[in-house]
Amino acid sequence: MQYPEPISKLIDSYMKLPGIGSKTATRLAFYTIDMQEDDVTEFAQSLISAKRDLSYCSICGNITESDPCMICADKSRDNSKVVVVEQPKDVMSLERMNEYHGLYHVLHGVLSPIEGKGSEDINIASLLRRLQKNEAIKEVIIATNATPEGEATAMYIARLVKPANIKVTRLAHGLAVGSDIEYADEMTLFKAIEGRQEI
Amino acid sequence: MQYPEPISKLIDSYMKLPGIGSKTATRLAFYTIDMQEDDVTEFAQSLISAKRDLSYCSICGNITESDPCMICADKSRDNSKVVVVEQPKDVMSLERMNEYHGLYHVLHGVLSPIEGKGSEDINIASLLRRLQKNEAIKEVIIATNATPEGEATAMYIARLVKPANIKVTRLAHGLAVGSDIEYADEMTLFKAIEGRQEI
Repeated sequence: MQYPEPISKLIDSYMKLPGIGSKTATRLAFYTIDMQEDDVTEFAQSLISAKRDLSYCSICGNITESDPCMICADKSRDNSKVVVVEQPKDVMSLERMNEYHGLYHVLHGVLSPIEGKGSEDINIASLLRRLQKNEAIKEVIIATNATPEGEATAMYIARLVKPANIKVTRLAHGLAVGSDIEYADEMTLFKAIEGRQEI
Repeated sequence: MQYPEPISKLIDSYMKLPGIGSKTATRLAFYTIDMQEDDVTEFAQSLISAKRDLSYCSICGNITESDPCMICADKSRDNSKVVVVEQPKDVMSLERMNEYHGLYHVLHGVLSPIEGKGSEDINIASLLRRLQKNEAIKEVIIATNATPEGEATAMYIARLVKPANIKVTRLAHGLAVGSDIEYADEMTLFKAIEGRQEI
Protein backbone atom coordinates (compact mmCIF):
# COMPACT_ATOMS: atom_id res chain seq x y z
CA MET A 1 0.00 0.00 0.00
CA GLN A 2 1.09 3.50 -0.89
CA TYR A 3 0.38 6.90 0.61
CA PRO A 4 -2.40 8.81 -1.22
CA GLU A 5 -0.90 10.38 -4.34
CA PRO A 6 -0.91 14.02 -3.16
CA ILE A 7 1.20 13.12 -0.17
CA SER A 8 3.61 10.79 -1.95
CA LYS A 9 4.20 13.49 -4.57
CA LEU A 10 4.91 16.02 -1.84
CA ILE A 11 7.32 13.57 -0.17
CA ASP A 12 9.12 13.20 -3.53
CA SER A 13 9.40 16.98 -3.84
CA TYR A 14 10.80 17.41 -0.34
CA MET A 15 13.31 14.64 -1.05
CA LYS A 16 14.76 16.67 -3.92
CA LEU A 17 16.05 19.19 -1.38
CA PRO A 18 19.61 18.69 -0.16
CA GLY A 19 20.07 16.80 3.10
CA ILE A 20 16.46 15.63 3.24
CA GLY A 21 15.93 11.87 3.11
CA SER A 22 12.72 9.88 2.94
CA LYS A 23 12.05 9.94 6.70
CA THR A 24 12.42 13.71 7.03
CA ALA A 25 10.47 14.25 3.80
CA THR A 26 7.60 12.16 5.15
CA ARG A 27 7.62 14.08 8.41
CA LEU A 28 7.61 17.41 6.56
CA ALA A 29 4.81 16.27 4.24
CA PHE A 30 2.55 15.28 7.12
CA TYR A 31 3.44 18.50 8.87
CA THR A 32 2.43 20.42 5.73
CA ILE A 33 -1.03 18.88 5.77
CA ASP A 34 -1.57 20.18 9.29
CA MET A 35 -0.28 23.68 8.44
CA GLN A 36 -2.53 26.72 8.04
CA GLU A 37 -3.89 26.92 4.50
CA ASP A 38 -2.53 30.48 4.13
CA ASP A 39 0.97 29.40 5.09
CA VAL A 40 0.95 26.59 2.55
CA THR A 41 -0.30 28.89 -0.21
CA GLU A 42 2.35 31.44 0.67
CA PHE A 43 5.02 28.74 0.66
CA ALA A 44 3.94 27.58 -2.82
CA GLN A 45 3.86 31.15 -4.12
CA SER A 46 7.26 32.00 -2.70
CA LEU A 47 8.74 28.93 -4.38
CA ILE A 48 7.37 30.02 -7.73
CA SER A 49 8.34 33.64 -7.18
CA ALA A 50 11.90 32.84 -6.08
CA LYS A 51 12.38 30.87 -9.28
CA ARG A 52 10.57 33.34 -11.57
CA ASP A 53 11.48 36.77 -10.19
CA LEU A 54 15.12 36.23 -9.33
CA SER A 55 18.04 36.06 -11.69
CA TYR A 56 21.78 36.59 -11.58
CA CYS A 57 23.22 40.07 -12.10
CA SER A 58 24.86 40.17 -15.53
CA ILE A 59 27.76 42.15 -14.07
CA CYS A 60 28.64 40.59 -10.71
CA GLY A 61 26.66 37.31 -10.72
CA ASN A 62 24.88 38.10 -7.46
CA ILE A 63 21.25 37.11 -7.04
CA THR A 64 18.89 39.95 -7.87
CA GLU A 65 15.40 41.03 -8.80
CA SER A 66 16.61 43.68 -11.27
CA ASP A 67 19.58 43.59 -13.63
CA PRO A 68 22.11 45.06 -12.89
CA CYS A 69 21.74 44.38 -9.17
CA MET A 70 21.27 47.10 -6.56
CA ILE A 71 24.96 47.07 -5.64
CA CYS A 72 26.28 47.27 -9.22
CA ALA A 73 23.72 49.99 -10.03
CA ASP A 74 24.60 52.08 -6.96
CA LYS A 75 26.79 54.93 -8.23
CA SER A 76 27.74 55.97 -4.69
CA ARG A 77 29.74 52.79 -4.11
CA ASP A 78 33.52 52.67 -4.39
CA ASN A 79 34.09 51.16 -7.83
CA SER A 80 37.85 50.78 -7.36
CA LYS A 81 37.47 47.58 -5.28
CA VAL A 82 35.91 44.23 -6.07
CA VAL A 83 35.47 41.52 -3.45
CA VAL A 84 35.36 38.04 -4.99
CA VAL A 85 33.15 35.58 -3.08
CA GLU A 86 31.96 32.04 -3.60
CA GLN A 87 28.22 32.49 -3.06
CA PRO A 88 25.50 35.19 -2.94
CA LYS A 89 25.18 34.39 0.79
CA ASP A 90 28.74 35.69 1.27
CA VAL A 91 27.78 39.07 -0.22
CA MET A 92 25.07 39.32 2.43
CA SER A 93 27.49 38.47 5.24
CA LEU A 94 29.92 41.15 4.08
CA GLU A 95 27.15 43.72 3.58
CA ARG A 96 25.88 43.09 7.08
CA MET A 97 29.31 44.23 8.38
CA ASN A 98 28.46 47.68 6.95
CA GLU A 99 32.13 48.62 6.56
CA TYR A 100 32.80 47.71 2.94
CA HIS A 101 31.37 49.94 0.23
CA GLY A 102 32.98 48.55 -2.90
CA LEU A 103 31.68 46.08 -5.46
CA TYR A 104 31.41 42.29 -5.56
CA HIS A 105 31.89 39.40 -7.90
CA VAL A 106 30.16 36.09 -7.17
CA LEU A 107 31.92 32.96 -8.46
CA HIS A 108 29.09 30.50 -7.71
CA GLY A 109 31.49 27.85 -6.55
CA VAL A 110 35.17 27.07 -6.26
CA LEU A 111 37.65 25.08 -8.28
CA SER A 112 37.33 21.50 -7.14
CA PRO A 113 39.08 18.78 -9.12
CA ILE A 114 37.36 16.15 -6.93
CA GLU A 115 33.90 17.37 -7.94
CA GLY A 116 35.14 17.93 -11.49
CA LYS A 117 34.69 21.69 -11.23
CA GLY A 118 37.15 23.61 -13.39
CA SER A 119 37.65 27.30 -14.10
CA GLU A 120 34.96 27.27 -16.81
CA ASP A 121 32.34 26.09 -14.29
CA ILE A 122 32.61 29.18 -12.10
CA ASN A 123 32.39 32.91 -12.93
CA ILE A 124 36.10 33.52 -13.51
CA ALA A 125 35.92 34.48 -17.19
CA SER A 126 33.31 37.15 -16.44
CA LEU A 127 35.56 38.55 -13.70
CA LEU A 128 38.48 38.86 -16.11
CA ARG A 129 36.29 40.52 -18.77
CA ARG A 130 34.98 42.89 -16.14
CA LEU A 131 38.51 43.86 -15.06
CA GLN A 132 39.54 44.43 -18.67
CA LYS A 133 36.53 46.61 -19.49
CA ASN A 134 36.49 48.58 -16.28
CA GLU A 135 39.70 50.50 -15.67
CA ALA A 136 38.43 51.99 -12.40
CA ILE A 137 39.04 48.69 -10.59
CA LYS A 138 42.35 48.91 -8.74
CA GLU A 139 42.05 46.08 -6.23
CA VAL A 140 40.59 42.59 -6.23
CA ILE A 141 39.98 41.30 -2.69
CA ILE A 142 39.58 37.54 -2.73
CA ALA A 143 37.15 36.36 -0.07
CA THR A 144 36.74 32.70 -0.92
CA ASN A 145 36.35 30.40 2.08
CA ALA A 146 39.38 29.33 4.09
CA THR A 147 39.11 25.76 2.75
CA PRO A 148 41.69 24.01 0.53
CA GLU A 149 39.42 24.62 -2.49
CA GLY A 150 38.88 28.25 -1.53
CA GLU A 151 42.64 28.73 -1.18
CA ALA A 152 43.37 27.08 -4.51
CA THR A 153 40.74 29.22 -6.23
CA ALA A 154 42.22 32.36 -4.65
CA MET A 155 45.70 31.44 -5.92
CA TYR A 156 44.36 30.67 -9.39
CA ILE A 157 42.54 34.00 -9.68
CA ALA A 158 45.53 35.91 -8.28
CA ARG A 159 47.77 34.43 -10.95
CA LEU A 160 45.37 35.54 -13.71
CA VAL A 161 44.69 39.02 -12.38
CA LYS A 162 48.15 40.16 -11.26
CA PRO A 163 49.66 40.56 -14.76
CA ALA A 164 47.00 43.23 -15.47
CA ASN A 165 48.65 45.35 -12.78
CA ILE A 166 45.70 45.12 -10.42
CA LYS A 167 46.38 44.67 -6.72
CA VAL A 168 45.18 41.29 -5.47
CA THR A 169 44.57 40.77 -1.76
CA ARG A 170 43.13 37.99 0.37
CA LEU A 171 41.12 38.23 3.59
CA ALA A 172 43.31 37.78 6.68
CA HIS A 173 43.37 34.41 8.38
CA GLY A 174 43.76 34.15 12.11
CA LEU A 175 41.91 33.72 15.35
CA ALA A 176 38.22 34.53 15.31
CA VAL A 177 37.36 37.46 17.55
CA GLY A 178 36.25 36.17 20.93
CA SER A 179 37.76 32.71 20.40
CA ASP A 180 40.14 30.82 22.70
CA ILE A 181 43.67 29.95 21.63
CA GLU A 182 43.16 26.66 23.47
CA TYR A 183 40.52 25.57 20.98
CA ALA A 184 42.06 26.94 17.78
CA ASP A 185 43.27 24.34 15.29
CA GLU A 186 46.92 24.15 14.22
CA MET A 187 46.43 25.70 10.78
CA THR A 188 44.58 28.70 12.21
CA LEU A 189 47.28 29.21 14.85
CA PHE A 190 49.96 28.94 12.18
CA LYS A 191 48.19 31.55 10.02
CA ALA A 192 47.71 33.77 13.08
CA ILE A 193 51.44 33.69 13.89
CA GLU A 194 52.43 34.12 10.27
CA GLY A 195 50.15 37.14 9.94
CA ARG A 196 51.06 38.71 13.31
CA GLN A 197 51.07 42.51 13.42
CA GLU A 198 52.96 45.01 15.50
CA ILE A 199 50.94 46.72 18.22
CA MET B 1 20.94 45.04 3.72
CA GLN B 2 18.35 42.39 3.14
CA TYR B 3 18.06 39.55 0.66
CA PRO B 4 15.82 40.38 -2.32
CA GLU B 5 12.21 39.97 -1.24
CA PRO B 6 11.41 36.75 -3.15
CA ILE B 7 14.26 34.95 -1.42
CA SER B 8 13.65 36.31 2.06
CA LYS B 9 9.99 35.29 1.75
CA LEU B 10 11.05 31.80 0.71
CA ILE B 11 13.46 31.62 3.65
CA ASP B 12 10.57 32.59 5.95
CA SER B 13 8.42 29.84 4.48
CA TYR B 14 11.10 27.19 4.89
CA MET B 15 11.60 28.32 8.49
CA LYS B 16 7.99 27.46 9.27
CA LEU B 17 8.82 23.78 8.76
CA PRO B 18 9.78 21.83 11.89
CA GLY B 19 13.50 21.45 12.61
CA ILE B 20 14.53 24.02 10.00
CA GLY B 21 16.33 27.10 11.34
CA SER B 22 17.47 30.19 9.51
CA LYS B 23 20.77 28.72 8.27
CA THR B 24 19.16 25.63 6.78
CA ALA B 25 16.27 27.69 5.39
CA THR B 26 18.75 30.01 3.64
CA ARG B 27 20.63 27.06 2.20
CA LEU B 28 17.38 25.50 0.96
CA ALA B 29 16.19 28.79 -0.54
CA PHE B 30 19.39 29.28 -2.54
CA TYR B 31 19.24 25.65 -3.58
CA THR B 32 15.68 26.21 -4.81
CA ILE B 33 16.80 29.03 -7.10
CA ASP B 34 19.26 26.68 -8.76
CA MET B 35 16.69 23.90 -9.15
CA GLN B 36 15.06 22.95 -12.46
CA GLU B 37 12.02 25.15 -13.11
CA ASP B 38 9.83 22.03 -13.55
CA ASP B 39 10.84 20.65 -10.17
CA VAL B 40 10.03 23.92 -8.44
CA THR B 41 6.62 24.15 -10.13
CA GLU B 42 5.88 20.55 -9.19
CA PHE B 43 6.93 21.24 -5.60
CA ALA B 44 4.59 24.26 -5.40
CA GLN B 45 1.72 22.28 -6.93
CA SER B 46 2.22 19.31 -4.62
CA LEU B 47 2.12 21.65 -1.61
CA ILE B 48 -1.19 23.09 -2.75
CA SER B 49 -2.57 19.70 -3.70
CA ALA B 50 -1.57 18.02 -0.42
CA LYS B 51 -3.42 20.72 1.46
CA ARG B 52 -6.44 20.88 -0.88
CA ASP B 53 -7.01 17.27 -1.92
CA LEU B 54 -6.38 15.47 1.34
CA SER B 55 -8.60 15.25 4.35
CA TYR B 56 -9.08 12.96 7.32
CA CYS B 57 -11.38 9.95 7.03
CA SER B 58 -14.55 10.68 9.00
CA ILE B 59 -14.53 7.11 10.32
CA CYS B 60 -10.93 6.27 11.24
CA GLY B 61 -9.14 9.65 11.06
CA ASN B 62 -6.54 8.40 8.58
CA ILE B 63 -5.37 10.72 5.83
CA THR B 64 -7.28 10.18 2.60
CA GLU B 65 -8.28 11.56 -0.77
CA SER B 66 -11.83 10.16 -0.51
CA ASP B 67 -14.09 9.88 2.50
CA PRO B 68 -14.41 7.22 3.88
CA CYS B 69 -10.82 6.13 3.22
CA MET B 70 -9.86 3.13 1.10
CA ILE B 71 -9.39 0.92 4.14
CA CYS B 72 -12.72 1.81 5.81
CA ALA B 73 -14.51 1.45 2.47
CA ASP B 74 -12.97 -1.95 1.72
CA LYS B 75 -15.67 -4.52 2.49
CA SER B 76 -13.21 -7.43 2.24
CA ARG B 77 -11.34 -6.34 5.36
CA ASP B 78 -11.88 -7.97 8.74
CA ASN B 79 -14.17 -5.52 10.54
CA SER B 80 -13.90 -7.31 13.88
CA LYS B 81 -10.49 -5.77 14.68
CA VAL B 82 -9.39 -2.15 15.04
CA VAL B 83 -5.74 -1.20 15.46
CA VAL B 84 -5.35 2.14 17.27
CA VAL B 85 -2.27 4.13 16.16
CA GLU B 86 -0.87 7.56 16.90
CA GLN B 87 -0.29 8.81 13.34
CA PRO B 88 -1.25 8.11 9.70
CA LYS B 89 2.39 7.07 9.15
CA ASP B 90 1.86 4.18 11.54
CA VAL B 91 -1.01 2.86 9.39
CA MET B 92 1.41 2.77 6.47
CA SER B 93 4.02 0.86 8.48
CA LEU B 94 1.48 -1.74 9.53
CA GLU B 95 0.02 -2.03 6.03
CA ARG B 96 3.48 -2.61 4.61
CA MET B 97 3.74 -5.71 6.80
CA ASN B 98 0.86 -7.17 4.73
CA GLU B 99 -0.28 -9.47 7.52
CA TYR B 100 -3.02 -7.43 9.14
CA HIS B 101 -6.32 -7.09 7.34
CA GLY B 102 -8.50 -5.40 9.92
CA LEU B 103 -9.38 -1.72 10.39
CA TYR B 104 -7.58 1.22 11.97
CA HIS B 105 -8.21 4.22 14.15
CA VAL B 106 -5.79 7.15 14.06
CA LEU B 107 -5.53 9.19 17.27
CA HIS B 108 -3.41 12.02 15.82
CA GLY B 109 -1.31 12.26 18.93
CA VAL B 110 -1.03 10.90 22.44
CA LEU B 111 -2.02 12.08 25.88
CA SER B 112 0.74 14.34 27.08
CA PRO B 113 0.20 16.43 30.22
CA ILE B 114 3.54 18.18 29.59
CA GLU B 115 2.38 19.43 26.20
CA GLY B 116 -1.07 20.06 27.62
CA LYS B 117 -2.66 17.41 25.40
CA GLY B 118 -5.69 15.82 27.02
CA SER B 119 -8.16 13.20 25.84
CA GLU B 120 -10.25 15.81 24.00
CA ASP B 121 -7.23 16.77 21.83
CA ILE B 122 -6.90 13.34 20.26
CA ASN B 123 -9.42 11.11 18.47
CA ILE B 124 -10.57 9.11 21.49
CA ALA B 125 -14.22 10.22 21.53
CA SER B 126 -14.64 9.19 17.89
CA LEU B 127 -13.16 5.76 18.71
CA LEU B 128 -15.67 5.25 21.51
CA ARG B 129 -18.59 6.36 19.30
CA ARG B 130 -17.36 4.01 16.61
CA LEU B 131 -17.23 1.06 19.01
CA GLN B 132 -20.74 1.86 20.28
CA LYS B 133 -22.23 2.11 16.81
CA ASN B 134 -20.41 -0.83 15.28
CA GLU B 135 -21.14 -4.09 17.05
CA ALA B 136 -18.93 -6.10 14.70
CA ILE B 137 -15.78 -4.84 16.44
CA LYS B 138 -14.59 -7.49 18.90
CA GLU B 139 -11.00 -6.47 19.52
CA VAL B 140 -9.15 -3.18 19.89
CA ILE B 141 -5.39 -3.61 19.35
CA ILE B 142 -3.53 -0.62 20.78
CA ALA B 143 -0.42 0.17 18.75
CA THR B 144 0.69 3.47 20.25
CA ASN B 145 4.46 3.93 20.48
CA ALA B 146 6.45 2.30 23.26
CA THR B 147 7.05 5.67 24.94
CA PRO B 148 5.73 6.75 28.36
CA GLU B 149 3.05 8.83 26.62
CA GLY B 150 2.16 5.97 24.29
CA GLU B 151 1.86 3.62 27.28
CA ALA B 152 -0.28 6.04 29.25
CA THR B 153 -2.57 6.56 26.27
CA ALA B 154 -2.89 2.79 25.82
CA MET B 155 -3.87 2.36 29.48
CA TYR B 156 -6.37 5.22 29.28
CA ILE B 157 -8.09 3.80 26.20
CA ALA B 158 -8.09 0.28 27.66
CA ARG B 159 -9.90 1.52 30.74
CA LEU B 160 -12.60 3.19 28.63
CA VAL B 161 -13.09 0.33 26.17
CA LYS B 162 -13.01 -2.75 28.44
CA PRO B 163 -16.38 -2.12 30.17
CA ALA B 164 -18.05 -2.44 26.73
CA ASN B 165 -16.92 -6.07 26.72
CA ILE B 166 -14.49 -5.56 23.87
CA LYS B 167 -11.12 -7.30 24.02
CA VAL B 168 -8.27 -4.82 24.34
CA THR B 169 -4.74 -5.90 23.43
CA ARG B 170 -1.39 -4.14 23.12
CA LEU B 171 1.47 -4.87 20.69
CA ALA B 172 4.17 -7.06 22.24
CA HIS B 173 7.30 -5.41 23.58
CA GLY B 174 10.64 -7.16 23.36
CA LEU B 175 13.83 -7.47 21.40
CA ALA B 176 13.72 -6.20 17.84
CA VAL B 177 14.28 -8.99 15.34
CA GLY B 178 17.96 -9.10 14.39
CA SER B 179 19.06 -7.04 17.38
CA ASP B 180 21.78 -7.92 19.92
CA ILE B 181 20.96 -8.50 23.58
CA GLU B 182 24.23 -6.71 24.36
CA TYR B 183 22.86 -3.43 23.01
CA ALA B 184 19.27 -3.68 24.27
CA ASP B 185 18.29 -1.19 26.97
CA GLU B 186 17.14 -2.36 30.40
CA MET B 187 13.44 -1.63 29.85
CA THR B 188 13.37 -3.58 26.60
CA LEU B 189 15.13 -6.54 28.24
CA PHE B 190 12.73 -6.39 31.17
CA LYS B 191 9.74 -6.42 28.79
CA ALA B 192 11.31 -9.26 26.82
CA ILE B 193 11.74 -11.41 29.94
CA GLU B 194 8.29 -10.51 31.23
CA GLY B 195 6.71 -11.47 27.91
CA ARG B 196 8.78 -14.65 27.36
CA GLN B 197 6.99 -17.48 25.59
CA GLU B 198 7.38 -21.22 25.71
CA ILE B 199 9.06 -22.77 22.68
